Amino acid sequence: MSEKKKKPWSGRFRGATDTLVEEFTASVHFDKRLYRYDIEGSLAHVRMLARQKIIAKKDEKLIVSGLKEILKDIEKGYLVFRPEDEDIHMAIEKALIERIGEAGGKLHTGRSRNDQVSLDVRLYLRDELRQIGEMVAHVKTALAGLAGAEEKTILPGYTHMQKAQPVLLPHYLLAYWEMLDRDEQRLGECHERVNVMPLGSAALAGTSLPIDREYTARLLGFPRVSRNSMDAVSDRDFIAEFVFAASLLMMHLSRFCEDLIIWSTDEFRFVEFSDAFTTGSSIMPQKKNPDVAELIRGKTGRVYGNLVALLTMMKSLPMTYNRDLQEDKEPLFDTVDTLKGCLRIFREMLGNLKFNRDRMWESASTGFSTATDVVEYLVRKGVPFREAHAVVGRLVLHCIDKDKDMDDLTLEEFRKFHRRFGKDVYTCLGVEHAVNSKRSPGGTARELVLKRLKDIAEGKI
Amino acid sequence: MSEKKKKPWSGRFRGATDTLVEEFTASVHFDKRLYRYDIEGSLAHVRMLARQKIIAKKDEKLIVSGLKEILKDIEKGYLVFRPEDEDIHMAIEKALIERIGEAGGKLHTGRSRNDQVSLDVRLYLRDELRQIGEMVAHVKTALAGLAGAEEKTILPGYTHMQKAQPVLLPHYLLAYWEMLDRDEQRLGECHERVNVMPLGSAALAGTSLPIDREYTARLLGFPRVSRNSMDAVSDRDFIAEFVFAASLLMMHLSRFCEDLIIWSTDEFRFVEFSDAFTTGSSIMPQKKNPDVAELIRGKTGRVYGNLVALLTMMKSLPMTYNRDLQEDKEPLFDTVDTLKGCLRIFREMLGNLKFNRDRMWESASTGFSTATDVVEYLVRKGVPFREAHAVVGRLVLHCIDKDKDMDDLTLEEFRKFHRRFGKDVYTCLGVEHAVNSKRSPGGTARELVLKRLKDIAEGKI
Amino acid sequence: MSEKKKKPWSGRFRGATDTLVEEFTASVHFDKRLYRYDIEGSLAHVRMLARQKIIAKKDEKLIVSGLKEILKDIEKGYLVFRPEDEDIHMAIEKALIERIGEAGGKLHTGRSRNDQVSLDVRLYLRDELRQIGEMVAHVKTALAGLAGAEEKTILPGYTHMQKAQPVLLPHYLLAYWEMLDRDEQRLGECHERVNVMPLGSAALAGTSLPIDREYTARLLGFPRVSRNSMDAVSDRDFIAEFVFAASLLMMHLSRFCEDLIIWSTDEFRFVEFSDAFTTGSSIMPQKKNPDVAELIRGKTGRVYGNLVALLTMMKSLPMTYNRDLQEDKEPLFDTVDTLKGCLRIFREMLGNLKFNRDRMWESASTGFSTATDVVEYLVRKGVPFREAHAVVGRLVLHCIDKDKDMDDLTLEEFRKFHRRFGKDVYTCLGVEHAVNSKRSPGGTARELVLKRLKDIAEGKI
Amino acid sequence: MSEKKKKPWSGRFRGATDTLVEEFTASVHFDKRLYRYDIEGSLAHVRMLARQKIIAKKDEKLIVSGLKEILKDIEKGYLVFRPEDEDIHMAIEKALIERIGEAGGKLHTGRSRNDQVSLDVRLYLRDELRQIGEMVAHVKTALAGLAGAEEKTILPGYTHMQKAQPVLLPHYLLAYWEMLDRDEQRLGECHERVNVMPLGSAALAGTSLPIDREYTARLLGFPRVSRNSMDAVSDRDFIAEFVFAASLLMMHLSRFCEDLIIWSTDEFRFVEFSDAFTTGSSIMPQKKNPDVAELIRGKTGRVYGNLVALLTMMKSLPMTYNRDLQEDKEPLFDTVDTLKGCLRIFREMLGNLKFNRDRMWESASTGFSTATDVVEYLVRKGVPFREAHAVVGRLVLHCIDKDKDMDDLTLEEFRKFHRRFGKDVYTCLGVEHAVNSKRSPGGTARELVLKRLKDIAEGKI
Repeated sequence: MSEKKKKPWSGRFRGATDTLVEEFTASVHFDKRLYRYDIEGSLAHVRMLARQKIIAKKDEKLIVSGLKEILKDIEKGYLVFRPEDEDIHMAIEKALIERIGEAGGKLHTGRSRNDQVSLDVRLYLRDELRQIGEMVAHVKTALAGLAGAEEKTILPGYTHMQKAQPVLLPHYLLAYWEMLDRDEQRLGECHERVNVMPLGSAALAGTSLPIDREYTARLLGFPRVSRNSMDAVSDRDFIAEFVFAASLLMMHLSRFCEDLIIWSTDEFRFVEFSDAFTTGSSIMPQKKNPDVAELIRGKTGRVYGNLVALLTMMKSLPMTYNRDLQEDKEPLFDTVDTLKGCLRIFREMLGNLKFNRDRMWESASTGFSTATDVVEYLVRKGVPFREAHAVVGRLVLHCIDKDKDMDDLTLEEFRKFHRRFGKDVYTCLGVEHAVNSKRSPGGTARELVLKRLKDIAEGKI
Repeated sequence: MSEKKKKPWSGRFRGATDTLVEEFTASVHFDKRLYRYDIEGSLAHVRMLARQKIIAKKDEKLIVSGLKEILKDIEKGYLVFRPEDEDIHMAIEKALIERIGEAGGKLHTGRSRNDQVSLDVRLYLRDELRQIGEMVAHVKTALAGLAGAEEKTILPGYTHMQKAQPVLLPHYLLAYWEMLDRDEQRLGECHERVNVMPLGSAALAGTSLPIDREYTARLLGFPRVSRNSMDAVSDRDFIAEFVFAASLLMMHLSRFCEDLIIWSTDEFRFVEFSDAFTTGSSIMPQKKNPDVAELIRGKTGRVYGNLVALLTMMKSLPMTYNRDLQEDKEPLFDTVDTLKGCLRIFREMLGNLKFNRDRMWESASTGFSTATDVVEYLVRKGVPFREAHAVVGRLVLHCIDKDKDMDDLTLEEFRKFHRRFGKDVYTCLGVEHAVNSKRSPGGTARELVLKRLKDIAEGKI
Repeated sequence: MSEKKKKPWSGRFRGATDTLVEEFTASVHFDKRLYRYDIEGSLAHVRMLARQKIIAKKDEKLIVSGLKEILKDIEKGYLVFRPEDEDIHMAIEKALIERIGEAGGKLHTGRSRNDQVSLDVRLYLRDELRQIGEMVAHVKTALAGLAGAEEKTILPGYTHMQKAQPVLLPHYLLAYWEMLDRDEQRLGECHERVNVMPLGSAALAGTSLPIDREYTARLLGFPRVSRNSMDAVSDRDFIAEFVFAASLLMMHLSRFCEDLIIWSTDEFRFVEFSDAFTTGSSIMPQKKNPDVAELIRGKTGRVYGNLVALLTMMKSLPMTYNRDLQEDKEPLFDTVDTLKGCLRIFREMLGNLKFNRDRMWESASTGFSTATDVVEYLVRKGVPFREAHAVVGRLVLHCIDKDKDMDDLTLEEFRKFHRRFGKDVYTCLGVEHAVNSKRSPGGTARELVLKRLKDIAEGKI
Repeated sequence: MSEKKKKPWSGRFRGATDTLVEEFTASVHFDKRLYRYDIEGSLAHVRMLARQKIIAKKDEKLIVSGLKEILKDIEKGYLVFRPEDEDIHMAIEKALIERIGEAGGKLHTGRSRNDQVSLDVRLYLRDELRQIGEMVAHVKTALAGLAGAEEKTILPGYTHMQKAQPVLLPHYLLAYWEMLDRDEQRLGECHERVNVMPLGSAALAGTSLPIDREYTARLLGFPRVSRNSMDAVSDRDFIAEFVFAASLLMMHLSRFCEDLIIWSTDEFRFVEFSDAFTTGSSIMPQKKNPDVAELIRGKTGRVYGNLVALLTMMKSLPMTYNRDLQEDKEPLFDTVDTLKGCLRIFREMLGNLKFNRDRMWESASTGFSTATDVVEYLVRKGVPFREAHAVVGRLVLHCIDKDKDMDDLTLEEFRKFHRRFGKDVYTCLGVEHAVNSKRSPGGTARELVLKRLKDIAEGKI
């Protein structure tokens, strides 16, 4: 076996690795993304080793400066990785040994790739979770800001895509605020489980060398160390959990985008995207397409797919580490990229929407969207709910037959349907009244919605 | 339209519902499972309505006694549901009106099926989560108990299904304790988001009637009410979240089962299932199959499938309630049933395993599973890790060539590979020593594992 | 072990099966659905056994009449299954032995449950595929029928939900005809792989008894027998393949339903569902909801979930039969039921749609949906396509600024944008002309669409 | 709007596309992979346009030479794409116009990106399907070759991972041949549906220009043109179908790999991977891990995930083209790459396996794996199957109690269990006999397996 083909682990091997195998098993082309975290982890590890006198101070110095140099070289693009480097961990260790010689061979003391890769991914995801958390918070702020700007806008609320009852646009927007608030919670809880230090679990059993895991954890800012070495090297729960939280978040965005796409049709015209947020057709010159909203919606599938990939990969995997686990990284990276990309553009998109207030109001005013208010009117007059519902149902049918709106009816006409109708029924028919009468907590009355916006602004959530 | 075909909502309808449509849209054949929660919710709702003077005290009394009677009748099997009853909510309201007349028509005042179904499912899932939480705790206790009983059992730990290093069986078992502990956490966090009272959100906008949502919440033991009515009626996050937590839990069980199945092969013989936990073959008389473990493993797919069903259903659904959401219940119910069934039998299975301690020990003693200890021995003697690794690799190859175990080698032979080898190297080769030397926190040393078991027993987790 | 607890395979067992285990592993509560196929298979098997002189003629007679009796009893509901019966195969064999004594014990000669269950499922699915195939054909016929009835209806075609170009409603409907045609093909190809006779593979290796598999196959109408016994007992490809074909079919239906739901909004009003195909709201008396379309859309997730369940279950399953495979049936049955239910109601729904032709025409006439025709007009006049596209783009912008439609422009105005515009440009602007000019094969010109309808009617597809 | 920011479709746009939007919506960084097919399609299209006199001969010449030049430049890496080029279609058209001026603006006549992208993907996938088909055929050949080389190797067949009956290793290998044969069929059927020419469907409605779709199809080697323009631009069935076929294929490979991984454990030792096909551990010097098999198994999840991504993306998408569809390409490309990578290495791996024939034989000889043969022996002697099964079950139990194998029993001992036992029973106990007696078609008898191998070699499948 030529020197060139030798691997750091090839002591017991007679034959060299097949080139095809090298290519097939290599992960360095994607896990190089972890280089910063790998080096950060190694720096902490080596400091601990020296403090514990497992390696000499002078070796520590050599390794630390070697690693820092490597970090710089990678960032400058001077260090290029090849398939035969296997993965980012081996690639960096190899580069270190090439640079500082024998001392480099001491870096891997008391650890294994199994705990090292877990550490790297946890450092990476912890970092990304912080950024994603901020992005979610920004989107929430943008939603609240838009809600404030559309304070008076009323639109028809829909169930089954049929007009149901008029609602405030801010109420609609704050519904998404709630969804994202739950997403933020879930991401935060996931963070707790990510934020655990696995190094020192070694291959699967721990090590006989006198390492100090708590010290390494402190250096890296982890509040806790993992409690079982076998679990630590085979656990990918935290990745699946993150991708699930991302799936729900994408689902929420997809629902908003679906509504926007429908609202921007020529038939609805509730909203218009700015030119900057639409694209044209290669053939049809009149087109202005809501591509951004469509793509966010479409990317939901991608994140769901990543979740299924991870769950499938983990299913019935024997303990502890198996090479299958290498397949955790690409779905994770893709989810992080997709989620960040979508959150960033979604927030921008919110600032590029022009709501057509008149059109929304007009639409809310038709289609009997205040019929439920008439029911509740009768209930307040003592009519049992179910009877009131039937009465108003027949009223609606009557109006359809006569091609009238309810406020076109005379009081006599009303009274034909129920004797309890009085002149005050007409008040119930107005859209503004309908909105503002929904004063049950969580309801759409302007007063309540403004109070909620104020609470959000003041952080009283 | 005949009276019989009339629906409680059919005021504005001229034509009756097509029978095929009735059957296709009916959910009563599966959502009848919610009857207890539906009635519990209605009882609280009607008490609140009376307290708020929205309905009269005498109506409250009639409704309360009517609902209690219906509850009894359902439990005795006297009340049978048909497709034309649509769903459990309409079915119970209809039964109530048949029994107490007009007053029954007041029950639905100030609410809609949209918030009602959310309430029912939350009450149901809250209840199930409590039970499931207890079952997970029981499995954890059973794992710790088994770990205690196998205090001295050593087996080979595997990575890539190749012998890696000897570990304590209790260490292996406690790795699953850790996984289930995370599952318990996730289920607990999910519970927080389930435990929110949605009633009063009505169709989507709230109601104009002076209801008191906080009072209803108190009656039903909810610490919080939902904050946005549109979100409340269209949110199914908590269901997807539960099914995801169940997916990870099933994945954990599937890994344990996979190991058990492999361990119970004739080739491994690490474990034997009792007769009570195996089944035979219809054709091969010698067979004793680990069916329970296989079925748990197989049922993982089912729970994953339920998760995908829910996520797909929610993807790009327009706001707010859409009938698609009715498809949330069967995956939820099936997940609850599957999970509870698996947890129950899994715990029983743990008590029906007979570990073959000698066989495990013997297996741990062969296959060079203490080679890493020899590496760390050299490291302690000052040899750089990477060099030590290579030396021992060559040693292993030498042994394979000579068909020897490492402890068959003479000291001279050792010294041919590295001059730092001394007589004390033989200590490293023992399985017991290998296990007990892994004293890094989270490692497999007996001392640490027993300490952990003690902490668990004392609730110091 | 009491007689009652004995299993047909319990010879080598000392202990009885745990009751919990019996319940957990039982499948008879769902696989009883296969009883007819199980008996059909057993009848053929026993005839073959007698013909091959493996069992005596008189035993054959006893078994045949016993099985036929059991069949009748099951159909009349006289035979009730319990968890301790395990599965439909054991349950029937047990009932047979109870009725005819020793001869019953000869039924299972030369087969195993492993090949028997494969046979049963193949017989079942073959039958269902025939029915489903017919239902798909009926939906296709209904689509073509509706296309014929709406021969002149023009609607705006959409891309990105923005008006693109006017198309014939029949053209739209026939797009679904194409999708379903592909579904039919896929189901047919799946049928080929289902239609293979596995019996005689026994447990996994075949049998030493002189069975005649070809004869059994003939009796059961199978054109082929399986070629490898190990493959035969572990293969579930045909189930996954069916569920995938069903997933695509459901996806197609979900797209149609999505369009219908949007088209039935008050804003679009392109279509109205009959009262018989909508339902009302428990609280809002004016509502008429397109529940059927929503539920079909929602049920797509369920079928996708079944596919994931199956694929997960099969992933990395060791050869050959494993008990995990028992988890194939529920997703299969649920997919069959869901698909048939959806196809049946979908076809009915097609007959309960009332298209609003005027509204569609009107909508197609606005929003510059013939702008592409103006581009192609210029192209025919020799203007390079990309230039023509830009010219018409500017024209559209001009119209929007002036709040005009294109046919409001004077010829001079046109000429300001390009000198090649002539009087004949006005012809291009008409919706009817736009539709009929699309004469490229597969295009929306009425002439082509009618020809296609004729071809379909005549079976020239 | 600066010239630089102008898009080919921006006639009606006042504002430039937001840079973030450009980046978010760009697909050129992944769809550039289609460049060859895009140019191939354009060349055919432009030839047709000239032949139909829609563009002039001289324009054709300019475009053709321009496109060919661009093709060369891309292949040499001279043409670099940027996000503002949007996608490979616009990028190439833009480059063409830059090079040949006005004539380049005529290329897009009579087509749209909607039909163009469908064409490109179909050309790409058709090509890949051909390659993948060949690779599957090669793996089948390799399996048959290995089967031939292991003609006499017997191993225990397993059900439930418990020894069931001895089988020939070639029989096991040919089970995979069957699976891959079905995969090949499915890929072939998918090819039929891929091999349809969509160009000329234009945006969604066809075109008014006198194009000749059949001619274009002939130039590109398509036997059929699509029949409905709306279907053509919105159909992605063929992609999902391919990814499903790939999912089943990966599932098959995952099962083989699972077995290999288990077989290469120290406990089984049925197979050894060559050094070239294993890798070592960073910490444990004795390790030789079957990474390739593990990674193939792990990559199954990835392909399943791609399937879910596609199905989710398509679910309830309104007609016709929506930007979501852009998300079809990455899962498709990743599936193609993963599948080809796995097939290539899998085939190589087959040639790097060393089966431990003695060990397999020995294992097949123990564990009562011929018990079923004894049952069938009794059946041949006239004992009813069920009774024979029970008798042999008790025999096995007796042997376990006495710690004997069946062939250790005396004839008297046999006769204690059933009087029909004769001296010839000992013949049944041999592994070789057990294998060769399974002469039912599809069984494991050597004679049958060799015949099958011969048929395969001669193409009589």
